[in-house]
Amino acid sequence: MNAKLIRAAIVGSTGYGGVELIRLLQSHPNVTVTSVISSSTAGTPIAEGFPHLTEIRTDLLDGLDIPAIRDKADVVFLATPHGVSMKLAPQFLEAGLKVIDLSGDFRLKSGDVYKQWYKHEPADKALIDRAVYGLAEVYGDQVPRTDFISNPGCFTTSALLGLYPAVKAGWVNPDSLIIDAKSGVSGAGRGLNLSAHYSEINENFKAYKVNKHQHTPEIEQVLSEAAGRPVVTTFTTHLVPMTRGIMTTMYATLTEPRSSADFVELYRQFYEGRKFVRVRPEGHWPATKEVYGTNYCDIGFSVDERTGRVTFISVIDNLVKGAAGQAIQNLNLLMNWDETLGLQFTPVYP
Amino acid sequence: MNAKLIRAAIVGSTGYGGVELIRLLQSHPNVTVTSVISSSTAGTPIAEGFPHLTEIRTDLLDGLDIPAIRDKADVVFLATPHGVSMKLAPQFLEAGLKVIDLSGDFRLKSGDVYKQWYKHEPADKALIDRAVYGLAEVYGDQVPRTDFISNPGCFTTSALLGLYPAVKAGWVNPDSLIIDAKSGVSGAGRGLNLSAHYSEINENFKAYKVNKHQHTPEIEQVLSEAAGRPVVTTFTTHLVPMTRGIMTTMYATLTEPRSSADFVELYRQFYEGRKFVRVRPEGHWPATKEVYGTNYCDIGFSVDERTGRVTFISVIDNLVKGAAGQAIQNLNLLMNWDETLGLQFTPVYP
Amino acid sequence: MNAKLIRAAIVGSTGYGGVELIRLLQSHPNVTVTSVISSSTAGTPIAEGFPHLTEIRTDLLDGLDIPAIRDKADVVFLATPHGVSMKLAPQFLEAGLKVIDLSGDFRLKSGDVYKQWYKHEPADKALIDRAVYGLAEVYGDQVPRTDFISNPGCFTTSALLGLYPAVKAGWVNPDSLIIDAKSGVSGAGRGLNLSAHYSEINENFKAYKVNKHQHTPEIEQVLSEAAGRPVVTTFTTHLVPMTRGIMTTMYATLTEPRSSADFVELYRQFYEGRKFVRVRPEGHWPATKEVYGTNYCDIGFSVDERTGRVTFISVIDNLVKGAAGQAIQNLNLLMNWDETLGLQFTPVYP
Amino acid sequence: MNAKLIRAAIVGSTGYGGVELIRLLQSHPNVTVTSVISSSTAGTPIAEGFPHLTEIRTDLLDGLDIPAIRDKADVVFLATPHGVSMKLAPQFLEAGLKVIDLSGDFRLKSGDVYKQWYKHEPADKALIDRAVYGLAEVYGDQVPRTDFISNPGCFTTSALLGLYPAVKAGWVNPDSLIIDAKSGVSGAGRGLNLSAHYSEINENFKAYKVNKHQHTPEIEQVLSEAAGRPVVTTFTTHLVPMTRGIMTTMYATLTEPRSSADFVELYRQFYEGRKFVRVRPEGHWPATKEVYGTNYCDIGFSVDERTGRVTFISVIDNLVKGAAGQAIQNLNLLMNWDETLGLQFTPVYP
Repeated sequence: MNAKLIRAAIVGSTGYGGVELIRLLQSHPNVTVTSVISSSTAGTPIAEGFPHLTEIRTDLLDGLDIPAIRDKADVVFLATPHGVSMKLAPQFLEAGLKVIDLSGDFRLKSGDVYKQWYKHEPADKALIDRAVYGLAEVYGDQVPRTDFISNPGCFTTSALLGLYPAVKAGWVNPDSLIIDAKSGVSGAGRGLNLSAHYSEINENFKAYKVNKHQHTPEIEQVLSEAAGRPVVTTFTTHLVPMTRGIMTTMYATLTEPRSSADFVELYRQFYEGRKFVRVRPEGHWPATKEVYGTNYCDIGFSVDERTGRVTFISVIDNLVKGAAGQAIQNLNLLMNWDETLGLQFTPVYP
Repeated sequence: MNAKLIRAAIVGSTGYGGVELIRLLQSHPNVTVTSVISSSTAGTPIAEGFPHLTEIRTDLLDGLDIPAIRDKADVVFLATPHGVSMKLAPQFLEAGLKVIDLSGDFRLKSGDVYKQWYKHEPADKALIDRAVYGLAEVYGDQVPRTDFISNPGCFTTSALLGLYPAVKAGWVNPDSLIIDAKSGVSGAGRGLNLSAHYSEINENFKAYKVNKHQHTPEIEQVLSEAAGRPVVTTFTTHLVPMTRGIMTTMYATLTEPRSSADFVELYRQFYEGRKFVRVRPEGHWPATKEVYGTNYCDIGFSVDERTGRVTFISVIDNLVKGAAGQAIQNLNLLMNWDETLGLQFTPVYP
Repeated sequence: MNAKLIRAAIVGSTGYGGVELIRLLQSHPNVTVTSVISSSTAGTPIAEGFPHLTEIRTDLLDGLDIPAIRDKADVVFLATPHGVSMKLAPQFLEAGLKVIDLSGDFRLKSGDVYKQWYKHEPADKALIDRAVYGLAEVYGDQVPRTDFISNPGCFTTSALLGLYPAVKAGWVNPDSLIIDAKSGVSGAGRGLNLSAHYSEINENFKAYKVNKHQHTPEIEQVLSEAAGRPVVTTFTTHLVPMTRGIMTTMYATLTEPRSSADFVELYRQFYEGRKFVRVRPEGHWPATKEVYGTNYCDIGFSVDERTGRVTFISVIDNLVKGAAGQAIQNLNLLMNWDETLGLQFTPVYP
Repeated sequence: MNAKLIRAAIVGSTGYGGVELIRLLQSHPNVTVTSVISSSTAGTPIAEGFPHLTEIRTDLLDGLDIPAIRDKADVVFLATPHGVSMKLAPQFLEAGLKVIDLSGDFRLKSGDVYKQWYKHEPADKALIDRAVYGLAEVYGDQVPRTDFISNPGCFTTSALLGLYPAVKAGWVNPDSLIIDAKSGVSGAGRGLNLSAHYSEINENFKAYKVNKHQHTPEIEQVLSEAAGRPVVTTFTTHLVPMTRGIMTTMYATLTEPRSSADFVELYRQFYEGRKFVRVRPEGHWPATKEVYGTNYCDIGFSVDERTGRVTFISVIDNLVKGAAGQAIQNLNLLMNWDETLGLQFTPVYP
């Protein structure tokens, strides 16, 4: 083992976010996962619940023993549900670890808004203020100055990378935004639930939490910053009979006539030098499988002169750019490494 | 065979629309399918290309011999591509058969609009005017007075049943309509195409023909009638990794404050007595599998006070209500039978 | 309501077997479902848990009140787990109802064998002896003489309809039988379980209960009867990423040279007059979708002269011929009606 | 670019085997892909037909110009159909390139057997004899001594890694072997075909080429070598509604009593030091998703004392260990590199 390596711990490793962190970090050149933590199944082999890790991870799951983890790790990823992260994050920070939290607990700056959408008491205000919101391609320059990152939501990442440059540039009316999102089922996690039961999902397409999804205020918080004034949006989420992938189709009214090519140009400039955003040429729209297993967010446009609207389409792998991948990208930024380190995968196709 | 029965012929029976007509008509109490026509494979057993029909249809496919069909059938269903229907329909009408056409050839009243979206010369104007547009729950009262029905498109049916009552009532701004549609792959037919190749579709979600789909003017034609003035809409189509089903999510700005319950009430009144539209109670949205294999169109609503918009969700089985089922419903109306005759299936679930 | 109708009750209607009984019986000409029973959700609308039944079943779920059910029903279908059926069946029989049980509780004649494979105490021996094993195409002639039917297992039905005629005829060596079965996931029921969680099943293929499946002794019991001596088999079950359908591929050594055509002929004779078994011609093998939603069992053969073995392939819809459909077929036989009554569906394809 | 790198060309890069070679080689530390060849679409960007490669491969497809390729590459992978490889391989060998062929053209030592199963004239006998059959874990020691490798078939790899040690050890009767294989659809390639059309495959399970698959003689050739005498097998292939993955379930009669644990031990010894074969502990069987996107072959066992048979289950990703991955593993062996170089992926799960 190399003395220069960062040592990482993962809490919540029996869910899909945690196990995806393991997959991605296995090939990271600068990071070793030294502790994989599950309070419920501590002491059993990691590969028992996830046989695909047979002979790849031969160690046992650790319990949630913070002093012990402090001795083994420099950074901790919290792949824990909301409500749990707000309890763990301050303990790990106090123990001197860098913390990257994948839950929704530290994303919303307003505790009242958190309470309204999550139906749960918010985290401590000082802690919320301390967290840097790690939407890497937008706020990545703030990441190196922190030890505490709040990783964005999956839908949020897809919607914001699609809308932010246009709203910031004033090319679209912020009051006109409609966001129609479609997600694979892994976003619902590994917890048992009738709405993730195979026979209920397969050969079926569903809408859920219509106008009620907790990523709504997260999207609005960032778009309001971009617009320089409060923005509300219409946001719908759907479940697609597939495991991975989010497509977000977004609609906005143009503030003045622009072509699809104009949008391509605007976005290419905005994301210049950012390898994980691939802006597609005019007339091409990305499909979810084209980013499968990777940290890419691909974006396409269609301006319709008949209606004066623009349609944006963005796709991500919800478990990578929408969770574990962006968390590692944030670690890279935090460590002042190349943001693509350990994340240069080619999409698995087909 | 019963002397009172209507005898039906089906042209284009080697596609999914044609074979679905066979499935549905097998159990229709008043209709016998006496001729199944395929010019390319005439003379071979129907069940050869569709082994699920083994011992159900033991007859051979007929060739396209109009005098012969005239002797065997009273009504003909044209499950043929656009461009083909416009050639066949006048010949069958002249031969004295009732014609129900499932293609796009006779749906648009304006030849120019047809040419613009279909990139094909339009049908004869007199023939277009003769066709009754068979959106059964909206224009069904015109059907009994004709011998020539133009069956609506699949996306169109889903979008129009979802939007028509609200636009007609003036509850939404017709300039604000955004239609985000998602379809199973069978809508693309049985013709070989990379975009319907299994490995390209499975575990993938795609947009296609963004702002270019040929059902756009069909939707706008009917909504313009409802609004009493020209309407243009933003319309996006997506491909879902499943075989059957369309969900259409639609967005509109309210003209004055209304609740979801108001919409439920409006739609229940509008569709009163029409068995195939099931308006869901407030807070419930239909999923595609809930209408699988049937002629139902289920509709749900969500009004968002924050944005002043209403979200409509409608689902159909694209091969039934979106094609073969509505065609049979139109035959029922045309014959002055109960419109549900032979179509009273319970959805296959799961 | 027609005085000639049989009134049916369904217990266990919140599982897939129960809801499939509802679907099929909705269109049965001689049966009305008067009571749908769920002890856990009694008093709520049937359509609440199964929205596809909206406006089709508007009644409420009944509790398990046997005197009340006796007043409303002539026959009861038990779509209950093993262990539960053995408690309910005697109570309904005593109340004078005909009972059709879909569980494994009364299929095995030996209590010891039951205990060994089900890890549960067997039912009362007298009750087991009273039950007629309803493999309709093999033992259907015993059904009219009973009021108590034990409906076969799904894998069992597929395997036995595929092997019985050949074993009975002595054309294959009973010691050589290898049964490789593949099932859609709905066979695992609606109960929550990680092994039926969407993301674990989709784009995955698994084996399970290798050499341990509880349908093994059921298959062997019938094949032993056919062979006239004890038979043991090798039986493997696999989970296919699809909802419905079982394919069973079976292997046997020929006792003397025969051709595939010989097998086609043998099976056509054996199943003569039985509409639900479709023996495919030489060189054709059925696929599961070709029986989707129906009570068919389709069978194909391939004799290999190189190895002296025959390969049998049979397919069923596990929820229809493998459960609810065969149960209704047994009711038809019990009532001396045509066995196809209410079951003449055309497969949903595609 | 590093002077020490091997330069590789890929022919047939518009199929799934070719594009998987690109994916895997992108991250190989010692290999640069300098030419991607498609005679039909030469001159167009690689990423045009495969948009997932956007910004990853920005070069154009080359035509089939052997002198030009000789100047750019040291090794060529032929991901071409049988019949084509036999024409190209000698030309590339003569030009001094190492050749790794993924087709079936050089796998069978007997031209007569090739002709019988492939219905095509065989390749030149001298060329066939020159090719080393690259079943890496069995014949890998022969690979470093050659410049011409014939990469095994996908089903073959799965079946042989599962059966070879047991047959070689004499633990099973070679006359009793029954091989029941199930494959994802990508094995059928990217060529358009009704049997790979989405709506025909989804929610369907099919058998095909029963007793006729061209991998049969390839399996038998190797097992005959292992057994020291001619072996014939019963081999069935099925299509699973998924994109990637093969499971092969294999049955054999024990020559004397052994336990599952005995088999685990035998296989662990046989495959000692070979990282890509993971022998599962007793009572565990692998699922296809557990090797998704990787070069692993996982194997499990179940001995049944009742029948005296053993059931073997092996899984691979058909496009990796079954094609492109094993081809690269062979290149590694040929170059005397660690066989895992560039292939150390963690399975994508879920």
